[in-house]
Amino acid sequence: MTGDKTARRPKAEPPKGFRDIFGADVAERRAMLDTIARVYELHGFEPLETSAVETVEALGKFLPDVDRPNEGVFAWQDDDKDWLALRYDLTAPLARVAAQFRNDLPQPYRRYAMGPVWRNEKPGPGRFRQFIQCDADTVGTPTVAADAEICAMLADALEAVGIPRGDYIVRVNNRKVLNGVMEVAGVLDPADPEKFATERGIVLRAIDKLDRLGEAGVRALLGEGRKDESGDFTKGAGLTDSQAEVVMGFVTANRIVEEMLSAALVENIEAGVPYSRFSRAMYSFDEETGRPLATDAEASFYRNSATLRHLASLVGDSKAGREGVGELETMASLLDAQGYGPDRIVIDPSVVRGLGYYTGPVFEAELTFTILDDKGRPRQFGSVAGGGRYDDLVKRFTGQSVPATGVSIGVDRLLAALRAKGRTAGATPGPVVVTVMDRDRMADYMAMAADLRRAGIRAEVYLGNPKNFGNQLKYADKRASPIAVIQGSSEAEKGTVILKDLILGAQIAASATLEEWKDRPAQVEVPRADLVAAVRRMLG
Amino acid sequence: MTGDKTARRPKAEPPKGFRDIFGADVAERRAMLDTIARVYELHGFEPLETSAVETVEALGKFLPDVDRPNEGVFAWQDDDKDWLALRYDLTAPLARVAAQFRNDLPQPYRRYAMGPVWRNEKPGPGRFRQFIQCDADTVGTPTVAADAEICAMLADALEAVGIPRGDYIVRVNNRKVLNGVMEVAGVLDPADPEKFATERGIVLRAIDKLDRLGEAGVRALLGEGRKDESGDFTKGAGLTDSQAEVVMGFVTANRIVEEMLSAALVENIEAGVPYSRFSRAMYSFDEETGRPLATDAEASFYRNSATLRHLASLVGDSKAGREGVGELETMASLLDAQGYGPDRIVIDPSVVRGLGYYTGPVFEAELTFTILDDKGRPRQFGSVAGGGRYDDLVKRFTGQSVPATGVSIGVDRLLAALRAKGRTAGATPGPVVVTVMDRDRMADYMAMAADLRRAGIRAEVYLGNPKNFGNQLKYADKRASPIAVIQGSSEAEKGTVILKDLILGAQIAASATLEEWKDRPAQVEVPRADLVAAVRRMLG
Repeated sequence: MTGDKTARRPKAEPPKGFRDIFGADVAERRAMLDTIARVYELHGFEPLETSAVETVEALGKFLPDVDRPNEGVFAWQDDDKDWLALRYDLTAPLARVAAQFRNDLPQPYRRYAMGPVWRNEKPGPGRFRQFIQCDADTVGTPTVAADAEICAMLADALEAVGIPRGDYIVRVNNRKVLNGVMEVAGVLDPADPEKFATERGIVLRAIDKLDRLGEAGVRALLGEGRKDESGDFTKGAGLTDSQAEVVMGFVTANRIVEEMLSAALVENIEAGVPYSRFSRAMYSFDEETGRPLATDAEASFYRNSATLRHLASLVGDSKAGREGVGELETMASLLDAQGYGPDRIVIDPSVVRGLGYYTGPVFEAELTFTILDDKGRPRQFGSVAGGGRYDDLVKRFTGQSVPATGVSIGVDRLLAALRAKGRTAGATPGPVVVTVMDRDRMADYMAMAADLRRAGIRAEVYLGNPKNFGNQLKYADKRASPIAVIQGSSEAEKGTVILKDLILGAQIAASATLEEWKDRPAQVEVPRADLVAAVRRMLG
Repeated sequence: MTGDKTARRPKAEPPKGFRDIFGADVAERRAMLDTIARVYELHGFEPLETSAVETVEALGKFLPDVDRPNEGVFAWQDDDKDWLALRYDLTAPLARVAAQFRNDLPQPYRRYAMGPVWRNEKPGPGRFRQFIQCDADTVGTPTVAADAEICAMLADALEAVGIPRGDYIVRVNNRKVLNGVMEVAGVLDPADPEKFATERGIVLRAIDKLDRLGEAGVRALLGEGRKDESGDFTKGAGLTDSQAEVVMGFVTANRIVEEMLSAALVENIEAGVPYSRFSRAMYSFDEETGRPLATDAEASFYRNSATLRHLASLVGDSKAGREGVGELETMASLLDAQGYGPDRIVIDPSVVRGLGYYTGPVFEAELTFTILDDKGRPRQFGSVAGGGRYDDLVKRFTGQSVPATGVSIGVDRLLAALRAKGRTAGATPGPVVVTVMDRDRMADYMAMAADLRRAGIRAEVYLGNPKNFGNQLKYADKRASPIAVIQGSSEAEKGTVILKDLILGAQIAASATLEEWKDRPAQVEVPRADLVAAVRRMLG
C-alpha cells in the first residue's frame, strides 16, 4: 500500500464521545432493562417509545437564535428550515406527547421509557455523548401518593436487578421545605417570588457543595464569601448571622437529627419509657463502645420522626414549608403502610439534586456499599437514580398546568456497580463449535450444528479457512466455546464424532503436567447419533 | 387564553416523518425482537450495539462538498468541524467496527444488531424517517456455507415469530449468474468491466420492472425502447434480438422452468421412470383436473433441479456464470442436508433486489399468504426480509478485501403481517385498578396494590381526583383493567373488599337485559385478607 492511498482512507473510529458495545455487555444491559421494565409494568406503567428526533421548538430549551443552536444538544436545520435535534432526555419528549395526546391518554398517565439520549458536551473519560436513560413518570396528578409509589417502585427495581436490601437507600426530600427555610431566613418572599433570586441562587449552590466544602465552607458562602486554597475568592450571599443560622439548620439537619436521637435516647432511659417494638433496641448497648444496638430499621424509624420534627421547627409558620413537611410525613406513612420502612426509603434533607428544577418531593437512590476506585481506595458507590415532582410539564404547549413526577435510573452506573460487586450474571457461554476437518463434508458439519440447535443448544460451524486446525481451536477459544465437535475421515467412517471439552481442557492445561495432558481425559468419542445427548451431558 | 399567547406556544408534534409508539405496540415489537435475537444467538451470532451517530467520513457515501451533506442522511457539523450523521443502516457501522477491531474480533465474526436507523427522505403515509432494522451478518469468510446458514436462520426466525411453514418462502439467487447471462448476451466483458456499463444499467432496471411491465415491456426496454400508456418514451438498451433473447431467458426463467417441469412429467410417464420419493407424486393425478398431485415440497424439489439446469444452459461457458450456478447448487445441497428443503428455501432467478450492490448470493423472504389491502382487495403480502453477499466491506478503511454476507429483517412489515393475520399475542391485560372511595385511607389502598404486586399481579391505585367514582371506572376501562377493587367505609368496617370483574361486566352490559344487569353477578365481596387469592381466581 502506498502512503498516498492510505492518506485518503477514512478513520475507522466512532465520533469522539461515542462508543460500541459488544456481545455479553449488550446482553447484560438488555437483561437489566428487561428486569426494570417488568417492575415498572407490575406497577401499571405503560411503555412509550418516542422518536430520537424532535423539533427544537418542542424541546423548548434551545432556540435557533444563532447560526445553529448549540446549547448541549445536537441540532441541525431540516430541509424545510425547521430546526431538528436529538432528544437530550426522555422528559421533554414526554411533555410533547402528554400535550399532543392529552385527550386520548388515561388520566393520570403512567408511562416508562428506555432508550438513548444525546448530549453535545465535551466528552471525557467515562463521559459519553450518547447514553441510555430509563425513566418512569406519572403525569396528571398532584397527589404525593404518586411520588410515594415511584419511590417504592424504585426500591423494587433496585432489588430486582440484584441490589439486596441494605445495600441501597432511597433518600427523599421536598423542595417546599427548602422554600420554607428560605422564607424564614428572609430570602424568599411568597408575595414577590422574584425578589432575592440572586441570593437564593448563591444559597442553593452553597448547599449543593456541603460534601466538598464542609459546614464551615458553606457557612462562609452564606455570609460574606469564601477564599479557597488557591486564594480565589467566591462572593457569598451576604446573609446576616441569624439568617445564615436558619439555613445552616437545614444544611446540618442530618447531624442535628443524630444529636437529637442521642439526647432522646438518654431521656428515654432516664424517664423509663416502656418497651416497644421500636424502642426495644434503644435499651440495649454494646458493652465495649456503649453504643445502642438498634438495627438499621429501628434507628432509621427514629431518624424519620426526628427529621420531620426538626424540619417542622425550621420552617416555622411558612405555608410552603409546612406543606413540604406535611408531604414528607404523608409519603413516609404511605410507604410504611406498604412495607417500605425507612431502612429502604428515608427522609433526608441533604438531598438537593437540582432543587431549582423541582417543585415538590425529590428523591435519590444511593448504593451504600463501598467499592475500590481506580487507585484502589475504598469509596461509597453513590447515586444511581433520582427524580422528583416537576409541575407545569405541558404548560408550554397547552397553557394548562399539568403536575407530574418521575424517576430516572442511571443504567450504566447501576451496571458498573453490579459488576464491581461481581453480581452480574457473568459471561454467557459461547456456542458449541463444529470444526471442519474435511471441507467436502461441510453439509455433514452443518447438519450437526442444526441438530444441536434444534435441541436448543447454541452451535455454529467454523466458517474460516479450515486448513490449519490449530486456528479452529484458537477461534473456539476466542468464542468462549465450551465444546469443539471434531469428525475427521476415520471418525466419519466409523460413524462417530469426537467431543473436546474446552473448559475442562483449559483447566487441565493450566494445572496439569504434560504427562497428564497426554491422556486427554477432556475428550470423548461418541456415535454420531448420540451427538446431541453427549453434548448435553458434557454441558452439564 | 388570549390568541396572543397561543401564537407563541410551540406545536406539540414530532417532526414530519417521525412517530411515537405506545404501550402494547412497544411490547409487541420488543417481544418480536427478543424472539429473533434468540434465534440469531442460537446460531452463534453475538449482539453489537454501535452508536447512532457516526462521522460522515466513516459512513462513506456522503461528503461535505456542499454547505452541508444532504444525500438522504441527517448530518450536521460538530463543534470541532467534523461532519457527523445519524446512521442510515446497520451495515455501514459494522464496516467501521470490523475495520477498527479487526485484530480483536473472532474471524469470521458473526454479529447481529437491532436498532433504529434514520433516512432524511420525504416522509409519506407509512413511510417514516426513523425505523428499526434487525440485521445479522457474517464478516470474514467467502464460503457460501455462510450464506446458506443465514438463509436457514432467516427461515427459523420467521417460524419463531409465528409465520408457519408454508406461509413464507426464502428465495435465493446469485449475482454471478446474471453476470454470466450478461457475458453471453455480449453486454459484459470480463476483461473490461467498465465497458457496456450504460447498457447493463438499462438491462438491470428493465429486469427489476418485470412485475409491473410484463415480459413484453421488459423485452421492449432491452431493444429500442418502450412507449408507455401516457405516450412517454423510455430509451432501451439497444440489444439485438439474439442478445435480448439470452436476457429474456433469464427474465422468464420461472415460466420456462414450469414448462420444463410439465414436459419432464410427460416424458417420465412415457418412459415409465421407476417410482422414487420425488417422482412418486408425478404419477398421481387429480381425476377431475388431470393435474399432478405433487406436494409443494416435491414440486419445488423438481423446480430447484430444473432451475439449475436452465441457468447452467443460459450462462454457457461464462466463468462467473458457472461459478454462480455452482454456488446456488452448493447452497441448495447444504440446506437440504440440514432439513431446509426447497419448500422453505428455493432457488428463484426472479430475485433481483439491488443486484448492483451485491457480489454473490442474494436472498429475499416473502410471505405467501394474501391479506386485504386498504381497498379490501386481496393481495400477496410480499417481502419482509432480504440480504446477500457484499464483499469489500472494510476495504475503504484498511485496503484489504473482507468478504461478508448478511440479512436484514423488516420488523415493522413483519409485525404488520402478523397483525393482519391476527397472529400477534394480542393486547396484554391492563393492571388491576384499586379505586379510592375515601381519600383519607390512601395508605390502605396502596397496601392492597402492593399485596397484589408481591403476588406478581399488575396493580395500581387510582391517582386521579377520586371525587367522581364514575371517572374511576372510566379510567379502569381506558386502562383495559380486568378488575376494579372497591372498599368504601362500610366494607372497611366489615374488613372486606368488593371485586368488580370488568371483563365479565362489559360482556353482560353488552348482551344482557337491564333486569339481569341489576343483579350484578360480575361482582363479589371478599374478606380483605383474601384479596390476592380472590383476584387470582377471578383472573382465571
